[in-house]
Amino acid sequence: MAKQQIGVIGLAVMGKNLALNIESRGFSISVFNRSSEKTEEFLKESEGKNVVGTFSIEEFVQSLETPRKILLMVKAGTPTDATIDSLLPHLDKGDILIDGGNTYFEDTQRRNRMLAESGIHFIGTGVSGGEEGALKGPSIMPGGQKEAHELVKPILEAISAKVDGEPCTTYIGPDGAGHYVKMVHNGIEYGDMQLISEAYFILKNVLGLSAQELHEVFADWNKGELDSYLIEITADIFTKTDEETGKPLVDMILDTAGQKGTGKWTSKIALDLGVPLPIITESVFARFISAMKNERVKASKVLSGPDHKAFDGEKQELIEAVRKALYMSKICSYAQGFAQMRAASEEYDWNLKYGEIAMIFRGGCIIRAAFLQKIKEAYDRDGDLTNLLLDAYFKEIVESYQGSLRKTIAVAIERGVPVPCFSAALAYYDSYRTETLPANLLQAQRDYFGAHTYQRVDKEGIFHTEWMSK
Amino acid sequence: MAKQQIGVIGLAVMGKNLALNIESRGFSISVFNRSSEKTEEFLKESEGKNVVGTFSIEEFVQSLETPRKILLMVKAGTPTDATIDSLLPHLDKGDILIDGGNTYFEDTQRRNRMLAESGIHFIGTGVSGGEEGALKGPSIMPGGQKEAHELVKPILEAISAKVDGEPCTTYIGPDGAGHYVKMVHNGIEYGDMQLISEAYFILKNVLGLSAQELHEVFADWNKGELDSYLIEITADIFTKTDEETGKPLVDMILDTAGQKGTGKWTSKIALDLGVPLPIITESVFARFISAMKNERVKASKVLSGPDHKAFDGEKQELIEAVRKALYMSKICSYAQGFAQMRAASEEYDWNLKYGEIAMIFRGGCIIRAAFLQKIKEAYDRDGDLTNLLLDAYFKEIVESYQGSLRKTIAVAIERGVPVPCFSAALAYYDSYRTETLPANLLQAQRDYFGAHTYQRVDKEGIFHTEWMSK
Repeated sequence: MAKQQIGVIGLAVMGKNLALNIESRGFSISVFNRSSEKTEEFLKESEGKNVVGTFSIEEFVQSLETPRKILLMVKAGTPTDATIDSLLPHLDKGDILIDGGNTYFEDTQRRNRMLAESGIHFIGTGVSGGEEGALKGPSIMPGGQKEAHELVKPILEAISAKVDGEPCTTYIGPDGAGHYVKMVHNGIEYGDMQLISEAYFILKNVLGLSAQELHEVFADWNKGELDSYLIEITADIFTKTDEETGKPLVDMILDTAGQKGTGKWTSKIALDLGVPLPIITESVFARFISAMKNERVKASKVLSGPDHKAFDGEKQELIEAVRKALYMSKICSYAQGFAQMRAASEEYDWNLKYGEIAMIFRGGCIIRAAFLQKIKEAYDRDGDLTNLLLDAYFKEIVESYQGSLRKTIAVAIERGVPVPCFSAALAYYDSYRTETLPANLLQAQRDYFGAHTYQRVDKEGIFHTEWMSK
Repeated sequence: MAKQQIGVIGLAVMGKNLALNIESRGFSISVFNRSSEKTEEFLKESEGKNVVGTFSIEEFVQSLETPRKILLMVKAGTPTDATIDSLLPHLDKGDILIDGGNTYFEDTQRRNRMLAESGIHFIGTGVSGGEEGALKGPSIMPGGQKEAHELVKPILEAISAKVDGEPCTTYIGPDGAGHYVKMVHNGIEYGDMQLISEAYFILKNVLGLSAQELHEVFADWNKGELDSYLIEITADIFTKTDEETGKPLVDMILDTAGQKGTGKWTSKIALDLGVPLPIITESVFARFISAMKNERVKASKVLSGPDHKAFDGEKQELIEAVRKALYMSKICSYAQGFAQMRAASEEYDWNLKYGEIAMIFRGGCIIRAAFLQKIKEAYDRDGDLTNLLLDAYFKEIVESYQGSLRKTIAVAIERGVPVPCFSAALAYYDSYRTETLPANLLQAQRDYFGAHTYQRVDKEGIFHTEWMSK
């Protein structure tokens, strides 16, 4: 019997769709699932396709050509370790495990090290695009041994999304680099979604736009600089009517946002790396506050806002200001996300290629957007760019849009509309471009109460002052 | 030979000062330090005092009355574990180790569990107040076995700061509770310092106040609601002249803030607990940005701010608005910090007493402030208060001061003065008091691209929509 080209373990929706995707590109596959019903089901659904169903780990491993390529699509964490443990006795040197789950990058680093001791290659790969992307073409971010990646590259390129004929996958870097970049991608997604929500909230609360008008605004925005999947689906969402009430469906949805933790990871690592990441972090906190629904309902009856103030400006002008505010904030958010990748790349010696990363975000994934091309071009101009804001294109945008962001925030805060991420974006911009921040006072305080010492502006050295002596 | 009442290991400045403090309250002490020079030095300095110097762990342990009370003042982390390991063979059941270092609370939990197996009590205690506090009376936050705390309580009460005759120490809770509360204390300290820095930056950049005028403003603020150690030393700092240049010393200090990590811990745990903590977190990020001095200098030459706009309002009015903005932001910051303690108390079953915690912050430590009395009173009114903002006193303040905070932020952002923490405070207030946030849109997006499902406003249940079908 001929051996199959790649195996997939785990036939939940993501694993199943990736398996179908792989097979549809002309690769022969074996599948295995812990409970055999899923395997039976899958075989039934894929009759006539180049699929071998297996019912033991041994049978699964034996069905594959060597070096074996095995895609793990099991739950992140302990189940992944358990699956690896069950595979290990049956593998040969040179075999390649590919973890396509939403795994924390440090786990991937650990597994990569551990398996390398047995001569097994381990590729941790981010897969973005949800269920539909998995089936039709996701964005794929593989990290691990480069020589192992070369062997699975044809498959990953075949199944990935394509933009202008280019596959949305590239080798990211060693060990945990792929899962790291996927994590930051998810953090950026949190930021994008919260920024859109704040824009929506201003348009709704200050201008009183209807769902139909909101649809038109977002559809219009999607034709310009903001052209992106998330803006597109936002425009779509406002067209949906609730069948039961006849109201816009969005108005019937409870305002308590869930989360699966990857945004939180991005913020925690930023704190460890010493990288400012306020926009994504505020977007995580915004989800937390949204989830405190009962507490907010109670607080809304206790704490008053500012006196009502009608908006007496020009409606179209404010809509355009909000659009610019959103684009500038988005730029600041990506500047932070890419700065964090840069810090991680230095910390872990990954040699990340930021332009390539922007390119593979362009298709398949949730944050796909026309503007990623601009990021790519910025890194083409300067592969060692410290911060996106310093690139000529982005500099021009943020300098000319800052007035709109300032105005939008002013309008919101005067009326009690919370804009944590817009505010964080502007504070970041203003802090980053400020030569002298007030941290001199802070250093004086630290030296006063804790003898922490300070540096001076006019000469080298470490100084301490006896502040209490007059 | 009579045995000593308590032993201190580690004679760096904090250990040394605590040892002197303990002895000065009439307790006999033994000391030990890894390098004997420090011990010799200490003995020389404390001649005539009730001090026994020891030169081996065994000698040290044997010099103490049982159950032994041993205060560890060594570096947090591995050195603390090493010291415990070296002590363990010489200890008896019922002996009490007290870790007074800046230890991460999970380490304290681990050590408490580990030592309990050998019948040794372990108290992890936060000590706040810096070198001077250690010598004259710090704020002390002990956590661990309650029965062990009873035995060391007389010493801790004797050496702690006193406010109105009340010692600034109380039993915080089991295992890591003391170090946890100290960690949040430090996070709050980060927030306070950044908020003061933002107030200073507005007064300096918008109103152009001189150091002398800034001194007067802060000295004046220190007479009212803001009365606190940090405002007091800020007022002091502006009086200090640099001897070399004749300029205000604060202007000669480099604006790159250092940090030791405890603020960062507080933010990371908030992310894990699902508690919004934007003010403290923005203050951590502000330190990060301040430390990117070279990058900022470069960015300041590339990225322009808004056109200059002179302030044409009433100077005293803006100063008063900034004062109110600072007090309201401080209240929001403490509301967040105490909400985080509440979440941790539930998570770890600590049964924290928030009013008592506020009380012991009133003296000795860096965040000591008159307003802590108000927090104490709020918890007296309702020991189970969900959020400080809901207390009658704080509600009244924030409702009437919100206009000043809105105005202050508007003035700052129009002029390009970064106010990340003021902004985060207002966004928190406005989010917290908003019954319906825009997270309905976010949930619609998540359901659209990931079939994450949503809840409805009008009935129970979990719903999913096929958004793409029109």
